[in-house]
Amino acid sequence: MKVIDWNRLDEAARTESLRRPVQKRQNEIASEVARLIEQVRADGDATLRALTRRFDGVELGVIEVAEAEFESATAQLPADLRAAIDEAYTRIRAFHIAAVPQNLRVETAPGVVCERITRAIPTVGLYVPAGSAPLPSTALMLGVPAEIAGSDAVLCSPPQADGRVEPSVLYAARRCGIRRVFKLGGAQAIAAMAYGTESVPRCDKIFGPGNAWVTAAKLLVAADSEGAAIDLPAGPSEVLVIADDTASPRFVAADLLSQAEHGPDSQVLLLSTSAAIVAAVQQELALQLAALPRATIANLALDNSRIIEVDSVETAIAISNRYAPEHLILSVRDARRCLASVRSAGSVFLGNYAPESVGDYCSGTNHVLPTYGAARAYSGVSVQSFLTFITVQELSVAGLAGIGPCAMRLAQAEGLQAHANAVAVRLEARP
Amino acid sequence: MKVIDWNRLDEAARTESLRRPVQKRQNEIASEVARLIEQVRADGDATLRALTRRFDGVELGVIEVAEAEFESATAQLPADLRAAIDEAYTRIRAFHIAAVPQNLRVETAPGVVCERITRAIPTVGLYVPAGSAPLPSTALMLGVPAEIAGSDAVLCSPPQADGRVEPSVLYAARRCGIRRVFKLGGAQAIAAMAYGTESVPRCDKIFGPGNAWVTAAKLLVAADSEGAAIDLPAGPSEVLVIADDTASPRFVAADLLSQAEHGPDSQVLLLSTSAAIVAAVQQELALQLAALPRATIANLALDNSRIIEVDSVETAIAISNRYAPEHLILSVRDARRCLASVRSAGSVFLGNYAPESVGDYCSGTNHVLPTYGAARAYSGVSVQSFLTFITVQELSVAGLAGIGPCAMRLAQAEGLQAHANAVAVRLEARP
Repeated sequence: MKVIDWNRLDEAARTESLRRPVQKRQNEIASEVARLIEQVRADGDATLRALTRRFDGVELGVIEVAEAEFESATAQLPADLRAAIDEAYTRIRAFHIAAVPQNLRVETAPGVVCERITRAIPTVGLYVPAGSAPLPSTALMLGVPAEIAGSDAVLCSPPQADGRVEPSVLYAARRCGIRRVFKLGGAQAIAAMAYGTESVPRCDKIFGPGNAWVTAAKLLVAADSEGAAIDLPAGPSEVLVIADDTASPRFVAADLLSQAEHGPDSQVLLLSTSAAIVAAVQQELALQLAALPRATIANLALDNSRIIEVDSVETAIAISNRYAPEHLILSVRDARRCLASVRSAGSVFLGNYAPESVGDYCSGTNHVLPTYGAARAYSGVSVQSFLTFITVQELSVAGLAGIGPCAMRLAQAEGLQAHANAVAVRLEARP
Repeated sequence: MKVIDWNRLDEAARTESLRRPVQKRQNEIASEVARLIEQVRADGDATLRALTRRFDGVELGVIEVAEAEFESATAQLPADLRAAIDEAYTRIRAFHIAAVPQNLRVETAPGVVCERITRAIPTVGLYVPAGSAPLPSTALMLGVPAEIAGSDAVLCSPPQADGRVEPSVLYAARRCGIRRVFKLGGAQAIAAMAYGTESVPRCDKIFGPGNAWVTAAKLLVAADSEGAAIDLPAGPSEVLVIADDTASPRFVAADLLSQAEHGPDSQVLLLSTSAAIVAAVQQELALQLAALPRATIANLALDNSRIIEVDSVETAIAISNRYAPEHLILSVRDARRCLASVRSAGSVFLGNYAPESVGDYCSGTNHVLPTYGAARAYSGVSVQSFLTFITVQELSVAGLAGIGPCAMRLAQAEGLQAHANAVAVRLEARP
């Protein structure tokens, strides 16, 4: 990893040092995906079968996973893996259920009651990528809040070479009460859920991470008023670690590598106040990397990555706020005090015993988080992502008499006479 | 308005009867807007000046509103209008502040503390259209929640022919603590806030309604990872009224017209169980329409609109859930009981004394609401729209020892060895 001294950089070089890896061929991918979406809209299941043949090399029969496949998935999964999924489910549920918003009721003036009620988004589509490894954890991270919200959830995940969806994903989906899973991956899965086909129900909102094609498809359907809402614009995963002289170089190196192994376009940043820690982390990185099965991928990601030497933890947090990382690890003295200064991040890990991987799997927080700086304006997936808020107002005659004149005066200022009339006819008719 | 009997329609005709007015030239507008955004990104303020000359016919000097303009706006505004803005501000604030989310803390396992903290989105851009009338109410609806959240807010609104921003908008903005207002309208205002120029700060999220060009610009910047997040995909305004035989035809007609006067592409729907009410509403519409200054606009909107006769209020609510209206007025016996069946809507008005216009101005709820069916998956603007949630985890050594094996088992199943290592190195090093 390249080592940079923040104090020696001018403003342009600082901006450059925090630049994410460029998303290549974005426009080209968007055009390809737009064509593919049109095909799915035009020919539904037939297109899904053709695209699955082309991209996944699988001849789909029935697109939906049959009940027998769920049963055999459960039967063939090792008991300890089933137990780990169950355990993670329980903790994710415990944390997410605490975030269910309460209804609100405020009497804003005598006889004027305003409320906020919540409703589950009726139909939601969950996307669980496969890629280089199955991701039962993503099925949990999407399925648990959908279940708590009470949305009707369907899930798409690409078929393996044998035409089946990975058993651990099926088990995790069923654990969250999901009954309908479709053997679909990539942009075609997103298109199917956004517009519906003969097999796949049309979904109001689509969730989940994915590669550049999946992301392009999500952005396209979100921009179409006939399409679907989406959870987040997703990009490659990233971590920013802030380490002072109380950090453990071995732990820090392990955390950087756990992010780097995700993919060659992952980005990891280490900000440190200690030259000794920086040197020790680099040694540890070399040692630990040698033993990793995904060392090649991790090495490519480390090429995109940087170590930045800073003069204080405060400076490091200011840099982090500017970068707005998906994951932020505070391996510093009194990490909790530092948390107060954190302004933009997806999820924060305090101290030396909170590795990012516990958040990825089973601390209880969600791992579907804003990347690529989106943490400045977006939050990770939660129960709220599956809810809508509806406001309600109920007025007594006296309540309308009290606030009606204010509405009429503003309507007049805005030149909207019919708005004023809607109040006036009621006040004239007062019993 | 066209009258339709729901029971006589087949499924295709039902879908057709709930179709919104087609958004014309969407692709063409998107291409134009994309070029305009590129110009703003390339040439900043110079482009903003050129586009304002072209579209608003105004020669901009300094783009930002000067302190003296705020002062003269306050001075020239009638005292009763200032009072109405102040009154609306107070009630909107009272309702919105109740919705500030609390921090959460859950110990999901012994020694594993998960939290959710909230932060204001650092910089937000508010767009207040001008069009046919000034909209101080929109400045309040965006400014109040931004102020409560604690975001740094800037506001753009098109200059009038005299080169000034409408005084009531300036007064409302300052009432919400907004210090920076820019004389910019249309897609160029959105581009300026999304990417920043010499004068306009770059914003993390952009809020507010607007015409087709503004909406196209918002969708484009939201799809760009270098752009900005947005509040909602906005479309033409709409209301759906459900009226049984307890409704007042006069009130219902006034409500339909208050929506219809917004613009020729507004849509109003009346669903009624009572043929007598339907006939009486039509008579009232003709009477009230004749007296409206914006009768021409309202008439065009009514051409897009429909009265649907239904056999029960339950059927009407099912139709409403399918349509997912921005505004839903329940002028029915026991409206509150019916509310329980409402699944998708922006804001709901219960009974005969809650006209939509109180929600537009001063009941306390927000009037920036999801249109065009977006209420199925989106909520109106609230304080939360200006906040991000950050999750936090802090583990004791014993806490990690407790949940670490679960994370390691799942990491192994997903083929992510470095994720497992990040736990393992800590458990091996346990003090």
